Amino acid sequence: MGVSMEWAAGGVTLPQGFRASGVAAGLKKAKKDLALLVSTVPAAAAGVFTANLVKAAPLLVTAERLRKGTAQALIVNSGNANACTGTEGYADAVAMAGMAAAALQLPEELVLVCSTGVIGRRLPLAKIEAAVPAAAAAVRKAGHDAAEAILTTDTVVKEAAVRFSMGGRPCVIGGMAKGSGMIHPNMATMLAFLTTDAAIEAGLLRRALKEAVDQSFNMITVDGDSSTNDMVLVLANGCAGNPVISGPGLEYQTFAEALTAVAVALAKKVARDGEGATRLIEVQVKGARTLNDARTAARAIAGSNLVKAAVFGRDANWGRIICAAGYSGALFDPSAVDIFLGAEQVAQDGAGLPFSEERAGRELAQDPALITVDFKEGDYSATAWGCDLTYDYVSINASYRT
Amino acid sequence: MGVSMEWAAGGVTLPQGFRASGVAAGLKKAKKDLALLVSTVPAAAAGVFTANLVKAAPLLVTAERLRKGTAQALIVNSGNANACTGTEGYADAVAMAGMAAAALQLPEELVLVCSTGVIGRRLPLAKIEAAVPAAAAAVRKAGHDAAEAILTTDTVVKEAAVRFSMGGRPCVIGGMAKGSGMIHPNMATMLAFLTTDAAIEAGLLRRALKEAVDQSFNMITVDGDSSTNDMVLVLANGCAGNPVISGPGLEYQTFAEALTAVAVALAKKVARDGEGATRLIEVQVKGARTLNDARTAARAIAGSNLVKAAVFGRDANWGRIICAAGYSGALFDPSAVDIFLGAEQVAQDGAGLPFSEERAGRELAQDPALITVDFKEGDYSATAWGCDLTYDYVSINASYRT
Repeated sequence: MGVSMEWAAGGVTLPQGFRASGVAAGLKKAKKDLALLVSTVPAAAAGVFTANLVKAAPLLVTAERLRKGTAQALIVNSGNANACTGTEGYADAVAMAGMAAAALQLPEELVLVCSTGVIGRRLPLAKIEAAVPAAAAAVRKAGHDAAEAILTTDTVVKEAAVRFSMGGRPCVIGGMAKGSGMIHPNMATMLAFLTTDAAIEAGLLRRALKEAVDQSFNMITVDGDSSTNDMVLVLANGCAGNPVISGPGLEYQTFAEALTAVAVALAKKVARDGEGATRLIEVQVKGARTLNDARTAARAIAGSNLVKAAVFGRDANWGRIICAAGYSGALFDPSAVDIFLGAEQVAQDGAGLPFSEERAGRELAQDPALITVDFKEGDYSATAWGCDLTYDYVSINASYRT
Repeated sequence: MGVSMEWAAGGVTLPQGFRASGVAAGLKKAKKDLALLVSTVPAAAAGVFTANLVKAAPLLVTAERLRKGTAQALIVNSGNANACTGTEGYADAVAMAGMAAAALQLPEELVLVCSTGVIGRRLPLAKIEAAVPAAAAAVRKAGHDAAEAILTTDTVVKEAAVRFSMGGRPCVIGGMAKGSGMIHPNMATMLAFLTTDAAIEAGLLRRALKEAVDQSFNMITVDGDSSTNDMVLVLANGCAGNPVISGPGLEYQTFAEALTAVAVALAKKVARDGEGATRLIEVQVKGARTLNDARTAARAIAGSNLVKAAVFGRDANWGRIICAAGYSGALFDPSAVDIFLGAEQVAQDGAGLPFSEERAGRELAQDPALITVDFKEGDYSATAWGCDLTYDYVSINASYRT
């Protein structure tokens, strides 16, 4: 990190003025499935949404409400995506947000709404309605409960937070995420909710969020499928008391770096916990002529089924790596490419080197498994994250609903 | 088929004037791995090549030689791709073609060359040199031996042929293909070699090949990875004695339809034999506003890991189908979409219908499993083919080299 910040234990309720809860509403079997997040005061708010043409109802409602750049609460359910549910689904999302507004005694337009789970089934609104009062009564410094309630096939809760200083005031950014299946770059590719007590204008908050997402959630991939429901939201309630960031400059930069750090930490947790994954794959492409070339190639390598299966099998099949870079759309000179698996160089100038299969296999067995590709042509680099492709991925996805 | 033609047993040597052989050169363990294909006279020739930026050496040699539009023979090895092998690899490809030219007593520039297998290892030229004379001595009506020699992880030989009539003369188009891993649309995505005794000018042959490939090999997907070595070649030697097709019109159309029929038959065999696959998935998108929208959506659905795993598990998770169409880039109105699994309609106007899980699961268990998506907006349709994603795919690709 370029700026002075430190990692902290906690998530969305670590910043001042945020409370949350997570309860079991009965949408999933005996698990927490309904989360509330609320700020003591209205907060600057911004979001990034899926690029999928098919957008779930709650996403449409939330995007509309974010146009004003202010929000104060968020209600999220897991177990049902409320996607492909027609005009009834849209009404259900509005109603669900309304339940949270009523229980929290907030204006409806300040409440955002989000769903994740199976596509194409009506939301069981009665179950949610029955559970919202208890969820509202339970809001406290319990970000962990909320982080648990938003999960679907995830195996671990995903939280991250940093402390830093701005305008002489201690500030915190916290976050929670869910991921697992359908994680793919080039859009907000899963659910992530970021909170901060820093004060920043909504327009700059939107810009910082886009910068952060481009380096984090848009650089991870599990299976190449982009969901109808993906979104990343950020709320900045100003409770830290720093002078409001109202233009570019050092303070904006500090904030954007801290936000990116939390986003990257969450994104890596999401990639690491890809369905059936046994380890994280980190792909660094350097020496590219443009940032776009570096990002495109890194994502293609991290997303290749053949590369992912080779990492699972600890098979130093570097041909699949250069092959994925080649079909990615990135421009580079294939005869200049160097490839490293961890510390072991396996290709130089686009051709194979004699290397130790044993050492290379050991490098691929690391968590994370590091793949470095150097185009040796320019100054741009990018890092993407993925996970290995395993028998369990197939097992999980062959019978998700049943 | 719009024109009158009939399927015939056989492959590349069914048309008049083509002979072939397949022998074991020791590149693979105790299996045929070297194929020769030769025409009695020079033939009009055309090719379509991988869109991967990284192109294997033999592909460069063959593309150069095809510029003149004439060729008479082809040598193919499996077991080694001769890709990412630098300038030495290029020289190896030229040398390999030269060995075939010498043994067949043909000018070098009329011999095309092709390799498939592991990337990044030098071709064992001595083994090939030792085997070429026997391969040349063995050429006869043995297309099946050649079709066997070009396979890698394929489980079945892939051949197809049709008989039809043109200019009062009986004509034949035959073909062989190999596929399995790394099969993805938008380029010549595997190896396929087509032969015909029809007479057609090289420019029109090129055009017919592109039309055929766009409806066949570019509409199949196994794992989304496009190889460095993919190519589709066609040789037309004119031995049928029909008047040379030298312009568009009925005869060209007849030829193009027959070529497309053979290409589609081979492409489906390739998709059906995807690594670890238990069945073919056929995705038809109709009612699209443009042909490109129909093709793009069909390919995305057939290529989605989540859809493929759901078919394997007979799980009627239609949300994944509309989701894949949504991120494909195709334009359509999500609230108008109808979806059918076989004969069972599961979604109407973009929302779920009550349907029989049992019947839908039975439809997905068919081979092929048929998925139909109707955008209900226009007149364009397209069909794509893929295979289910299984435990065996992971198993095969976790240890391909070892």
